[in-house]
Amino acid sequence: MKRILLASSLLLLLAAIGLAQPQPAPAAQPPAVISSPEVHADNSVTFRFLDPNAHEVMLALEGAKPAPMQKDDQGIWSLTTAPLAPDFYGYSFVADGVGLIDPSNPLMKPNLLHTQSQVHVPGPASLPWEVGDVPHGLVHHHFYKSGVVGDERDFYVYTPPGYDPKAKRSYPVLYLLHGFSDDASGWTAVGRANVILDNLIAQGKAKAMIVVMPLGYGAPEIVVPGPRAFASELRKKNYDRFSQALFTEVMPQVEGAYRVSKDRNSRAIAGLSMGGAESLLTGLNNLDKFAWVGAFSSGGITEDFDAEFPGLDAKANEKLRVLWIACGTDDRLIEPNRKMRAWLDSKGVHNTPIETPGGHVWMVWRRNLAEFSGLLFR
Amino acid sequence: MKRILLASSLLLLLAAIGLAQPQPAPAAQPPAVISSPEVHADNSVTFRFLDPNAHEVMLALEGAKPAPMQKDDQGIWSLTTAPLAPDFYGYSFVADGVGLIDPSNPLMKPNLLHTQSQVHVPGPASLPWEVGDVPHGLVHHHFYKSGVVGDERDFYVYTPPGYDPKAKRSYPVLYLLHGFSDDASGWTAVGRANVILDNLIAQGKAKAMIVVMPLGYGAPEIVVPGPRAFASELRKKNYDRFSQALFTEVMPQVEGAYRVSKDRNSRAIAGLSMGGAESLLTGLNNLDKFAWVGAFSSGGITEDFDAEFPGLDAKANEKLRVLWIACGTDDRLIEPNRKMRAWLDSKGVHNTPIETPGGHVWMVWRRNLAEFSGLLFR
Repeated sequence: MKRILLASSLLLLLAAIGLAQPQPAPAAQPPAVISSPEVHADNSVTFRFLDPNAHEVMLALEGAKPAPMQKDDQGIWSLTTAPLAPDFYGYSFVADGVGLIDPSNPLMKPNLLHTQSQVHVPGPASLPWEVGDVPHGLVHHHFYKSGVVGDERDFYVYTPPGYDPKAKRSYPVLYLLHGFSDDASGWTAVGRANVILDNLIAQGKAKAMIVVMPLGYGAPEIVVPGPRAFASELRKKNYDRFSQALFTEVMPQVEGAYRVSKDRNSRAIAGLSMGGAESLLTGLNNLDKFAWVGAFSSGGITEDFDAEFPGLDAKANEKLRVLWIACGTDDRLIEPNRKMRAWLDSKGVHNTPIETPGGHVWMVWRRNLAEFSGLLFR
Repeated sequence: MKRILLASSLLLLLAAIGLAQPQPAPAAQPPAVISSPEVHADNSVTFRFLDPNAHEVMLALEGAKPAPMQKDDQGIWSLTTAPLAPDFYGYSFVADGVGLIDPSNPLMKPNLLHTQSQVHVPGPASLPWEVGDVPHGLVHHHFYKSGVVGDERDFYVYTPPGYDPKAKRSYPVLYLLHGFSDDASGWTAVGRANVILDNLIAQGKAKAMIVVMPLGYGAPEIVVPGPRAFASELRKKNYDRFSQALFTEVMPQVEGAYRVSKDRNSRAIAGLSMGGAESLLTGLNNLDKFAWVGAFSSGGITEDFDAEFPGLDAKANEKLRVLWIACGTDDRLIEPNRKMRAWLDSKGVHNTPIETPGGHVWMVWRRNLAEFSGLLFR
């Protein structure tokens, strides 16, 4: 490794700036401007990536099998898909084994382990994630130091159109949890929760509600690349501290800052994947606080359900307004979710089983949110 | 180009999802986990990038000349810098001419033309961009349809710690504008404006204020790769519509939703690069609305200053509380900024000339914000 000298007066505050070049050259440009992704009139999409020396470039498109791209004589790799269903799709270019964003596309899919790009295949206004000609709510970004976890962290709060902090009215609240490797921005930046709620509220399909999107890690050290088989202590620590931070840090801040009802009948919790497991564990073990529970493709609950949900039985039906358990039929988590539902059935706990086409993908979760949120607080 | 079939029932809503693979493979992993960037105890930084077949990989680090990385026998390119001054640095890997983010690093530097990565070289709490053990304000994300420009767009609003929408107190407001190719998130995601204000307010170095960060494009079609020499009509359209959207759309929303003073003595406008030019044009041509104007490395004003600022003369001194014109001495925009100041001097318009080390980089602009915001509303 070569050490370059960026500054002569090392460690002085302005050193690196002092020797900055006049107008540093921007990142070198491709020989031609690469247009990618290009969405065609028939909803097929052409992806392009300049990498003259790669031996293999694959397109990893959300919901599809990785597919090889073809190189032209200028070193531009490309692939045109069949027409795609209107939606947002995450994707990467995998060049000789390394997943990369599309450098021609500013639309990111933020993630703590694998930042990707997103492509929007536009569809009709009836799709809930399309920005509609309707009033828009706001997304508020909160920052605080967590005493429970010991880090600086954040959460997001959606307030619906017309929300007035000075009015007397109070709103029901949905706590909406992201999945493993997402950050707190996942449900807005990728899940489009604010757009979905704007549309459903305008159409009368969902009640006006506040949506709180906290950071889902009680043990942030779990967010490392590699196999997902966490030691059971780490998994438990992650859940326990998440739950404790939610109850003692996030909820008090939300209830202090916004006009949210504190009635359990006006409080829901739902999430995807790891956040689905957190929703089930937090919700079903705290029925004094939540009447509405949703799990989208949940993963991370052991099969020792009696230990995960001690004492849960048919008496819960008096308190649970909806227990919604959804999973895509092509998701390997479908079996654990079926087992969870079978156990609930054996205990006489009413639940709404939802199986839809699809894998472990945001296209499933956006639809889950649109459907689940429409049931809430009625 | 090969067309792959992603879905058999094309254009049906769930088609792409229906054929999704069970647990689609994530983007293929590098052979080993690559750690990048690695900040060492002496503030040197090692960058690593796996690209076994590239012929050349350069590190494009903000404020430094692009530097070649060295490849090891596993195909990992790396470079260790000299110790760097504590700061946040944008960077890309330029592999055979293509600028790429660091796939091992989730910290993005969002940009509409060249998304990059960022590395944080931590420093003492006295640096205003370090998250301090102080109360934190909020960042509110607004969405609206612009009648002036005709697009769906957004803006961000920082409210300081302790801001209470129900209290009677009103706050002064700084309109803070990003540069060319940034989006409306630039001043928070890269400029750390919320962190800087949190710290300065806690230390009594800045007044508690609201900061509004609008999208700076009146003509979004200017945001395309290539030379920055816009036709004068397009430049004028971009400025005119930006200004019109600010006055007729953003300011009314802000003044309706937040407790901000409408007194010109409590209203400032500042920005960087393109946003610096917009601040000068908008501020100096509307002294009935702004008493505080700041330009950080401004670029985009023609040298026909009499035409850019019709009628501006020493009478402006009665209204201008601060006119702050800053530029890095290694920025090629230093000369246009000196010419602008010379013209102001020739007209007898008082201004505060600030020249600091550095190029056209965020390290300069964070310091500009910290210094300028401390002068405001006193």
